[in-house]
Amino acid sequence: MNGVANQTDALRIGNHVFSSRLFLGTGKFSDLDVQQRAVDFSGTEVLTFAVRRLNLDNPDAPNFLERLDLKKYTLLPNTAGATTAEEAVRIARLAKASGLCDMIKVEVIGNPKTLLPDPIETLKATEILVNEGFTVLTYTSDDPILAQHLQKAGAHAVMPGASPIGSGLGILNPHYLKFIIEEAQVPVIVDAGVGSPSDVSLAMELGADGVLLNTAVAGAKDPVLMAEAMKLAVEAGRKGYLAGRISKKRYASASSPVEGMIE
Amino acid sequence: MNGVANQTDALRIGNHVFSSRLFLGTGKFSDLDVQQRAVDFSGTEVLTFAVRRLNLDNPDAPNFLERLDLKKYTLLPNTAGATTAEEAVRIARLAKASGLCDMIKVEVIGNPKTLLPDPIETLKATEILVNEGFTVLTYTSDDPILAQHLQKAGAHAVMPGASPIGSGLGILNPHYLKFIIEEAQVPVIVDAGVGSPSDVSLAMELGADGVLLNTAVAGAKDPVLMAEAMKLAVEAGRKGYLAGRISKKRYASASSPVEGMIE
Amino acid sequence: MNGVANQTDALRIGNHVFSSRLFLGTGKFSDLDVQQRAVDFSGTEVLTFAVRRLNLDNPDAPNFLERLDLKKYTLLPNTAGATTAEEAVRIARLAKASGLCDMIKVEVIGNPKTLLPDPIETLKATEILVNEGFTVLTYTSDDPILAQHLQKAGAHAVMPGASPIGSGLGILNPHYLKFIIEEAQVPVIVDAGVGSPSDVSLAMELGADGVLLNTAVAGAKDPVLMAEAMKLAVEAGRKGYLAGRISKKRYASASSPVEGMIE
Amino acid sequence: MNGVANQTDALRIGNHVFSSRLFLGTGKFSDLDVQQRAVDFSGTEVLTFAVRRLNLDNPDAPNFLERLDLKKYTLLPNTAGATTAEEAVRIARLAKASGLCDMIKVEVIGNPKTLLPDPIETLKATEILVNEGFTVLTYTSDDPILAQHLQKAGAHAVMPGASPIGSGLGILNPHYLKFIIEEAQVPVIVDAGVGSPSDVSLAMELGADGVLLNTAVAGAKDPVLMAEAMKLAVEAGRKGYLAGRISKKRYASASSPVEGMIE
Repeated sequence: MNGVANQTDALRIGNHVFSSRLFLGTGKFSDLDVQQRAVDFSGTEVLTFAVRRLNLDNPDAPNFLERLDLKKYTLLPNTAGATTAEEAVRIARLAKASGLCDMIKVEVIGNPKTLLPDPIETLKATEILVNEGFTVLTYTSDDPILAQHLQKAGAHAVMPGASPIGSGLGILNPHYLKFIIEEAQVPVIVDAGVGSPSDVSLAMELGADGVLLNTAVAGAKDPVLMAEAMKLAVEAGRKGYLAGRISKKRYASASSPVEGMIE
Repeated sequence: MNGVANQTDALRIGNHVFSSRLFLGTGKFSDLDVQQRAVDFSGTEVLTFAVRRLNLDNPDAPNFLERLDLKKYTLLPNTAGATTAEEAVRIARLAKASGLCDMIKVEVIGNPKTLLPDPIETLKATEILVNEGFTVLTYTSDDPILAQHLQKAGAHAVMPGASPIGSGLGILNPHYLKFIIEEAQVPVIVDAGVGSPSDVSLAMELGADGVLLNTAVAGAKDPVLMAEAMKLAVEAGRKGYLAGRISKKRYASASSPVEGMIE
Repeated sequence: MNGVANQTDALRIGNHVFSSRLFLGTGKFSDLDVQQRAVDFSGTEVLTFAVRRLNLDNPDAPNFLERLDLKKYTLLPNTAGATTAEEAVRIARLAKASGLCDMIKVEVIGNPKTLLPDPIETLKATEILVNEGFTVLTYTSDDPILAQHLQKAGAHAVMPGASPIGSGLGILNPHYLKFIIEEAQVPVIVDAGVGSPSDVSLAMELGADGVLLNTAVAGAKDPVLMAEAMKLAVEAGRKGYLAGRISKKRYASASSPVEGMIE
Repeated sequence: MNGVANQTDALRIGNHVFSSRLFLGTGKFSDLDVQQRAVDFSGTEVLTFAVRRLNLDNPDAPNFLERLDLKKYTLLPNTAGATTAEEAVRIARLAKASGLCDMIKVEVIGNPKTLLPDPIETLKATEILVNEGFTVLTYTSDDPILAQHLQKAGAHAVMPGASPIGSGLGILNPHYLKFIIEEAQVPVIVDAGVGSPSDVSLAMELGADGVLLNTAVAGAKDPVLMAEAMKLAVEAGRKGYLAGRISKKRYASASSPVEGMIE
């Protein structure tokens, strides 16, 4: 690569191939017009949403995805609301039965205050859903060993949280995120907690394969402009990763080397 | 702004108006071809270089700027090599006499190991050169009070260092950088020490008006790709700043609000 | 408390009561004399060591604990070397059969490079050993939900790692450590990764009930002096926690309020 | 040193020799009884206070130092309230005329919101007062070059702020503080901004010669207990510095080396 097109830098998850590395959540937008334009400006190819928010049993109810041309996107339904593997599996099957997608984001919450994932139930749900033929992307903590367990269970991508969902705290532990990435056999998508373009860029510079955002865009003062900022940040971070940054040094080195001394 | 063009988001320094907010140094590139392409991909409109590196007294000597079409850029000569106000002033006058530009970046180094600027000599040089009619951009530490002194002396922009020149340590003290920005009456261009796109984006999110880079691009494994990454990072950070990020919270808030509980 | 004695500020784990909140590992010392004096100066009441290092089947082999008056300390054997719950359980039973102690530190490593604990096997081992009547202290990651699972399984203390064993990186994620502490029903002993007295003090200020150290003391240039430093740091951090620190503010507030203006 | 007495580890500033490395401010205490006991438990030998708060022209007015046995302490009056060198010099002379002490802490504030020191006026005041024979301790920013200027001007100690006065933000830029310490020819006393024992310990581990505190003690919920915590933290950090901490490593190293594998 030399600063030009990167046609070959595609992200592959299961049988899916994406050129955008930004996944966008569809919740929390103030209105559907803002949602639609934010989705557009983000350049995303993958939309995520809670299966529970779809009124699958009542086709006449209002649909918060109604403004989006869903044929243009890969849908990534998630199991938000589940607190056990059993619940997550039930939600995933519901999604599949509705013909939404073969992909599922496993999300099993262990605590209503921190919304951190339950490692035990998350692993169980992943094992079951992989066996049922889903393409499974698993939301997980930043525990590097758990990420390995999930991959051994067949997860098609692991999605470590940067910090609590919606907190905007950014990447609390870049060190362990780096461990996860260094040992990954499947794509690593950073999910949850990022708040700003620099957070997103840092995730990508650490070698993440993608980033999933929702609150950071939907909750910004100007969600559409933030969606565009995040798109650029993903690209900046990805190119920065591929370009190979300088190493850090305690002391200085002159940018403007000067040969002589003035007289 | 709504995610589209930002024609009006221009950067003004003295009488100059720029649409790019990335200033690029021209030193340290492995060869002139790489330098030329990095400059190109960075989208910069301002090139900085040490006056001392120009062989002003020997027009036949090799010229490290020879590949660049200098008419396309605003030149920002700097006084690198100066350790006193007197030396900096002398270099600045030399630059002006050579017809390079009315702009000068004041750089008076106080320590050869850290390359940190000398606050006293830097302020003196700024006062003198402002009085001589230069458009003065001053490289300074991240001391918020010194930044105020420089502005009272008439500096047209202040350029606080993020960390030592060429160190790649990023923004060591975002808190004081923010103080400088909050009280600034002139543009604040973050100069020195940034190493990665996320550093650049963070500087812009804090409200900086621009970023000056050199080593982070020239020293990358692929300088041309890094130049492009930095261009995107400046834009991501700027748009992120204008879009208004979410505030940080200790605990979570659900992106996928769920109404009921599963049965 | 008002700066005086804190006789009542005892640490209780299972049936054990300690007045020192510093647990010290016995490995990695350069010689047994330094080990003995470091133990002494640390003020510790709990010594930890790998059961595997005791030559339980050969009483004539050299014994790295031979210099210590073991009657003065509570022994906390650990299951280092185990990579599965099964191995950990076997080691724990061996320790109990040897009459070492009813306490066991469960340590099941998931990766030889990072030495991070395996969450799944760690939870299994904890469940089994609690059921067998051990007083179980479990070395775990900083995953707050896993810490809750361990407590539900009956762990008598949870021992979240600050960072990888022996790394000296300090507390990589104070945020999640705080979550663990806020929701804990049993003592939280920070284990692994701390490198300096300030790391130790910070752990205690966050509300940890104790700290376990080994490499930070044994690997210091002067292990005996560092042992004393760590003892003081535990006390400083504990008292700082109990004393209630000031909250952080972005801007200043004068320590020396001045009523008038000069003249 | 081997973990025992450190009689020779004295702090020398000008002609003064101290065995405690904690300087304590006397302002902001809720009442004089708490102030007196906090001073006592801190173990300090140096008390600092604003000259402006002494009613030097009215000996009958209430005196906020009245409870303290001033003969037991070295007094370090400061020039708080000064915003120019001229004002600082006037205050210092007033202090000397009152026979308080030959020591003066130069404090010239550049901004009422951040209370950060004015580098230019601070240097001027230091030059003048050194020439007048004061023992000068100068409150300064964390600019390493300015610290060198102050030492060339004859300051007997430099007192870089960790963060804004009273903010409790701790050490915002340990990197530059370390630069100041590495190049210092006189003692470096960290002043302002520290909030907790771990902040204090970190300052000492970086090699600071002492710490000055006020708000962190006076504003704690239990100031007396916090004073004791801070005393211990200074000692912990000092001993940790002298003991030579382990270096940091990205990956782990086992504390409990295990020779064989189980079975």
